[in-house]
Amino acid sequence: MTLDLYKFVASIPDYPEKGIIYRDILPLMANGEAYKQATDELVAYAKDKNVDMVVGPEARGFIVGCPIARELGVGFAPARKKGKLPREAVSATYTLEYGTATLQMEKDSIKPGQRVLVVDDLLATGGTISATIKMVEEMGGVVVGCAFLIDLKDLHGREKIKDYDVKALMEF
Amino acid sequence: MTLDLYKFVASIPDYPEKGIIYRDILPLMANGEAYKQATDELVAYAKDKNVDMVVGPEARGFIVGCPIARELGVGFAPARKKGKLPREAVSATYTLEYGTATLQMEKDSIKPGQRVLVVDDLLATGGTISATIKMVEEMGGVVVGCAFLIDLKDLHGREKIKDYDVKALMEF
Repeated sequence: MTLDLYKFVASIPDYPEKGIIYRDILPLMANGEAYKQATDELVAYAKDKNVDMVVGPEARGFIVGCPIARELGVGFAPARKKGKLPREAVSATYTLEYGTATLQMEKDSIKPGQRVLVVDDLLATGGTISATIKMVEEMGGVVVGCAFLIDLKDLHGREKIKDYDVKALMEF
Repeated sequence: MTLDLYKFVASIPDYPEKGIIYRDILPLMANGEAYKQATDELVAYAKDKNVDMVVGPEARGFIVGCPIARELGVGFAPARKKGKLPREAVSATYTLEYGTATLQMEKDSIKPGQRVLVVDDLLATGGTISATIKMVEEMGGVVVGCAFLIDLKDLHGREKIKDYDVKALMEF
């Protein structure tokens, strides 16, 4: 039986500020069947892309990306918030509503020519995912797809990553 | 063929401070075979425990715990750093070398009576894992096991969780 994944997304009005509806994907993760189905659907999307590595930004990108890597039989490389990696890293800075944020990846985490699937829970403005793609490409990786649970369409993230193949299981 | 997982742990001397050897598990995650083998070994440990949910603390606990949840066919509930959860949460504070830190879980993420496997990358002093266990039990969950990639034996984390069943794939 196929589950309606929308039923596992909690919508919180006026969070983090008035007028914003926050989409909380943790109820989906907490349900074994829904988590498996969502993972399977993204694995199916990635299956014919000959993916060598899955990359996800901290921290919910890990929750979505890691089981996909495991199912594909490939490795997972995290894009971490600045200052968390002990070894040499590449960095990318992106713009937030107020100020900027920086992500980092271990410098040897992607080998030149590796085919990379970039995964996150939500596609919003596309800032996080663009920064992640930039680091993957700086290391010589080839981004063969971007996979999300949710695309927040009004924020037009797809325009920012229009040169890439994008899959989202749900839209709000 | 069984891989020697120790070969996939990078050891960084004098990080984060002089005299400490930091054990970096990201090379293990980055290798599809090693990541699969490590996951499989922890899944095998959990298999006869009738696990209902996997819980892991932010953020590396997600990388280790999520594929285990997926393989067991159960849900995953994160223990997040304070201030990241949009809905009602339970909290637990633990002591760090200097000061304290607080973890939070969504209040409905564990149902009373659920059998919970707690997972993290490293067992160090046991502060993080104890705080995580405390929240699970506050919600009525039953911790049936604690699984780690690495036990840093000199830090005596096992003593802090001596009432629980503990599995670690590697020791340093």
